[in-house]
Amino acid sequence: MLRLRCLLTTTTTSSFHQFPTLSSSSYSARSSSSSKVKTMSYSTESSSNNNKKKNKLLFRQLFEKESSTYTYLLADHFHPDKPALLVDPVDRTVDRDLSLIKDLGLKLVYAINTHVHADHVTGSGLIKTKVPGVKSIISKASKASADILVEAGDKIQFGDLYLEVRATPGHTVGCVTYVTGDGPDQPQPRMAFTGDALLIRGCGRTDFQGGSSQQLYESVHSQIFTLPMDTFIYPAHDYKGFTVSTVGEEMLYNPRLTKDQETFKSIMENLKLSYPKMIDVAVPANMVCGLQDVESKAA
Amino acid sequence: MLRLRCLLTTTTTSSFHQFPTLSSSSYSARSSSSSKVKTMSYSTESSSNNNKKKNKLLFRQLFEKESSTYTYLLADHFHPDKPALLVDPVDRTVDRDLSLIKDLGLKLVYAINTHVHADHVTGSGLIKTKVPGVKSIISKASKASADILVEAGDKIQFGDLYLEVRATPGHTVGCVTYVTGDGPDQPQPRMAFTGDALLIRGCGRTDFQGGSSQQLYESVHSQIFTLPMDTFIYPAHDYKGFTVSTVGEEMLYNPRLTKDQETFKSIMENLKLSYPKMIDVAVPANMVCGLQDVESKAA
Repeated sequence: MLRLRCLLTTTTTSSFHQFPTLSSSSYSARSSSSSKVKTMSYSTESSSNNNKKKNKLLFRQLFEKESSTYTYLLADHFHPDKPALLVDPVDRTVDRDLSLIKDLGLKLVYAINTHVHADHVTGSGLIKTKVPGVKSIISKASKASADILVEAGDKIQFGDLYLEVRATPGHTVGCVTYVTGDGPDQPQPRMAFTGDALLIRGCGRTDFQGGSSQQLYESVHSQIFTLPMDTFIYPAHDYKGFTVSTVGEEMLYNPRLTKDQETFKSIMENLKLSYPKMIDVAVPANMVCGLQDVESKAA
Repeated sequence: MLRLRCLLTTTTTSSFHQFPTLSSSSYSARSSSSSKVKTMSYSTESSSNNNKKKNKLLFRQLFEKESSTYTYLLADHFHPDKPALLVDPVDRTVDRDLSLIKDLGLKLVYAINTHVHADHVTGSGLIKTKVPGVKSIISKASKASADILVEAGDKIQFGDLYLEVRATPGHTVGCVTYVTGDGPDQPQPRMAFTGDALLIRGCGRTDFQGGSSQQLYESVHSQIFTLPMDTFIYPAHDYKGFTVSTVGEEMLYNPRLTKDQETFKSIMENLKLSYPKMIDVAVPANMVCGLQDVESKAA
């Protein structure tokens, strides 16, 4: 992982309280009247937080309605560079995401994918054409191309925060789960971006792209259900309007993964799901991190 | 507001750290293996939080896709009663919401509406038929019927937490914004449930139900933009996949409310929006807090 490590900053600072709150960024406003709003300058120092310990993580959950995909924005907004990353950006919502990143005064560093999606085209490629310097990331096991190929145990550092890479194959052969770091400087409770490996009260299908119900069962139980019970589960999709769950909740209430392995395999083998309508477009595009258009134009 | 005050608990406890994190509930698991998952018992004591001060607020954002409506679940999950409330429940997603409340071991106390919605039927009435004892809440100014009619300055207590009622008319004559409490025991940053008064980078239309663009402008600037800059904005709807904003962000980037009042009025008067397709069904139903079916059956 030399390529990866070269790109990662490894600075550390004194400890802050770490809670996965949403952004507590605020503004140094001289007035709340509309006529003076334009005079406000962006600041990540929260006026109401100046007298208490700070939450370094700026976090936003974003939804793409057509494919019911969640994209996650994470940034260390107390780091001088305000480095940010996007987990599972979608091509259709890249402009929305980049506009928000600009509004929040962040510097996008990484466009990260949990796996090669079959239901939408990743925004990674489009982002790279719009924001020079952004590095795309996907797992080495996915066999997809990206600037950085990660493996289990790798750390993706952004400012003083980092994501840990956990291999969670089963939905696809290259699925990984990104988990916020462990330690006093990192968000508490931890946050797991599980892709399609573990969904809220569900999980991804296992009948395409090297999927394996046995492997998915083992991945979730060994790599996700072993995290602290209060770890937040942030999936790549939700179709019922849920936004988050916890490890403890899914261990108690997930209708598939609370079953024994044989029952789980039988459930997954009898889902009788239709052929994914986007798969023939999305998978080839996502194997090159959404850069198919750029490459074809360059050819 | 005697009726309201009689229903409110006013217990107080020692101070906890208050961050509007999502649920940090967890479970006293004796094992993470699926065969023993059923033996886990629900506990709101977070195993990883036992050695640090606790976040009392359990918070979940829920989405109803057809009307792009957000419903919010808030609970004091460290209070012995685990009292919970729902802000802007939708009739179509009541079963989902009640199932989550059951899973989390909470006691639903209030079904709260920010206003008489024109685009969907509130879940308040259906909830009352399914969960005896739940009280519906809406503003007195809305002229709608509910168990509790609130006015500006009222506090809606749930356990040791409370919501403050702020009058924010303009989208409708009875719109209110519910803001989490101020003080060391309450969530920090504060959270404002703005209904349709203030949307992320937008606002509700002002051409129906006693709407007034001048009144909406004054409401947002006097009641919402005067909150701390890092106050989270949780609207009743979002159509672009945003889940949250902050007061500071909207003061800088809201394309309508950053304008002067005359420009805002001109924008609102020239939106040329079509007649809301649900209004003739939703408004009559919501004027009785979604109890129209129950009442017609009783008639």
